[in-house]
Amino acid sequence: MNNKVRACEEVGIKSKRIELPIDIDEATVLAEIDRLNADPAVHGVLVQLPLPPQISISRVLERISVDKDVDGFHLYNVGGLLNGTTVFPPCTPYGVQKLLEHEQVQIAGRNVVVVGASNIVGKPVAMMLMQQDATVCICHKLTRDLAMFTLMADILVVAAGVPNLIVPQMVRTGAVVIDVGINRLPDGRVVGDVDFEGVSKKASLISPVPGGVGPMTVTMLLYNTLRSAERTVGIVDNDESRLSGV
Amino acid sequence: MNNKVRACEEVGIKSKRIELPIDIDEATVLAEIDRLNADPAVHGVLVQLPLPPQISISRVLERISVDKDVDGFHLYNVGGLLNGTTVFPPCTPYGVQKLLEHEQVQIAGRNVVVVGASNIVGKPVAMMLMQQDATVCICHKLTRDLAMFTLMADILVVAAGVPNLIVPQMVRTGAVVIDVGINRLPDGRVVGDVDFEGVSKKASLISPVPGGVGPMTVTMLLYNTLRSAERTVGIVDNDESRLSGV
Repeated sequence: MNNKVRACEEVGIKSKRIELPIDIDEATVLAEIDRLNADPAVHGVLVQLPLPPQISISRVLERISVDKDVDGFHLYNVGGLLNGTTVFPPCTPYGVQKLLEHEQVQIAGRNVVVVGASNIVGKPVAMMLMQQDATVCICHKLTRDLAMFTLMADILVVAAGVPNLIVPQMVRTGAVVIDVGINRLPDGRVVGDVDFEGVSKKASLISPVPGGVGPMTVTMLLYNTLRSAERTVGIVDNDESRLSGV
Repeated sequence: MNNKVRACEEVGIKSKRIELPIDIDEATVLAEIDRLNADPAVHGVLVQLPLPPQISISRVLERISVDKDVDGFHLYNVGGLLNGTTVFPPCTPYGVQKLLEHEQVQIAGRNVVVVGASNIVGKPVAMMLMQQDATVCICHKLTRDLAMFTLMADILVVAAGVPNLIVPQMVRTGAVVIDVGINRLPDGRVVGDVDFEGVSKKASLISPVPGGVGPMTVTMLLYNTLRSAERTVGIVDNDESRLSGV
C-alpha cells in the first residue's frame, strides 16, 4: 500500500490508511466500509488483500460502493467489462490499454493473444480489448502448442508469471508485445515473462520490466480515483463515455 | 414469453405474466420489481425486452434481486462469469455447456473457437468454457481470416446470426460443432449459422437447427428457476458448487 500512498501524495490526492487488528470480526470491517461509503469526502475505497481467514474477501469487496470501487474488483464493475459498461476498469488491464492507446496501436480487427487467464489481468484485459473489436485468444498453462497461438498475435499480452516464457521464435516480426509479468529471480534481478533482449529484436514495440506496465497500475488507480471524484460533480470524461457507451 | 409460460406449466412451475401499459413510467416498473423481489413465493423474475424508450433497460435489469435473476442478465451475475462465482449463468450459454457435458466432451486443454462476440451468447459462453480451462478464441465480423481460427477448433461454437457462415472447409475433421444461430430464410425455412449437411460429414458431433441449442435456452431458464427455489431452502446443487467454487 505504501507506494499507493506515496503516489497519492505526489499528485495531491489525500489518502488515509485505516489499519485494523488482525483478529477483527467481519461485521466491524463491513461497518467501517459502510462509513467510508457514506462519507462524501471519500471517492475511492481500497481493501488491501489478503484478509485474515475469519473475513470473507467477496463479502468485503462487494460491500464497497460500486461508485467508490476504484480498484474495479466489485462484481458489478467486473460484469461491466463484458458489455462495455464498466465505470472503473481494473487498474493493470486499464494500464495495458492506456499504453496501447498512447502508442496509437490499432486494436480493432487485429489479433490479440493474451497469455495467462487470471481474474485480475488476463481475463479483464481480454474483455477490454475485445470490447475494442480485437479478435482475442486467451491461452494459459493447459494450452497445447502455445507458440501456434503467440505467432498469430499482432498484439501479445503476457501475464503468466513465468520468467522467459516468451522467446523470439514465438513472436511474429513486427508484433506489439506487452509484458505484464513481474518475477524476482534467485539472483535478485526482476524480469518479466518475455525474453526482452531477444524479443525486442523482432517486436515493433515492447514494454520493459521493470518499468512498462508496472507503474501504470498505480497510475490508473489514481486516474480511477480522479474520475470517481469528477463523477460526483457530474463530469464524465472521454474514457467513461467510451467505456460506458454514454 | 409464451413458450416460457408453456414450458413452466409443463414442468409444474407456476408462472405469472404481468403486463404493464406501454406508456408506464419507470418508477412504477421499478416498484413492481421491488414487490416481486420481496415476495417469498417468487423465485425468478424476467423482464421481457425490448422496453419502451422512457424506461432504462439497465436500471430495470439491475433492480431485479441477484437471487431471482434467473435470466443471468444482472451485472453482478455477469461479473461472476469472469471469476467463476456466478449463481445464474445466462440461459443460452448454459445450454451450450450442458449439451457438451451431456455428450461428455472434454473441455480442459482443448481449443475452443467462438464465432460471434455478443453480450448474450458469444462472450459469456467464452468465459464459461475458459472457466473450464479451455483455450478460447473469440472471433467476430472484424476477424481477419476467420477460417484460420475455426480450423484450430476442437470445439466450435457459432453464434453469429449469418446463415451458412461455416462451411466444411472451415472445420477440422472430428471437431465438435455447436450451432447457436437461428435464421429465418426468405422461403420460411429456419437454419443455423452452419452448413449442417456439409459440416456434419466432418464433425464428430454437431447440433442441428431447429433443435439443438434452441430448446436448451428455455430448459436452462427452468433449471435456474428450480435452483433459485432450492437455494431458498438451503439446497446447493452440483452445478452451483462447481460454478461458485463452494
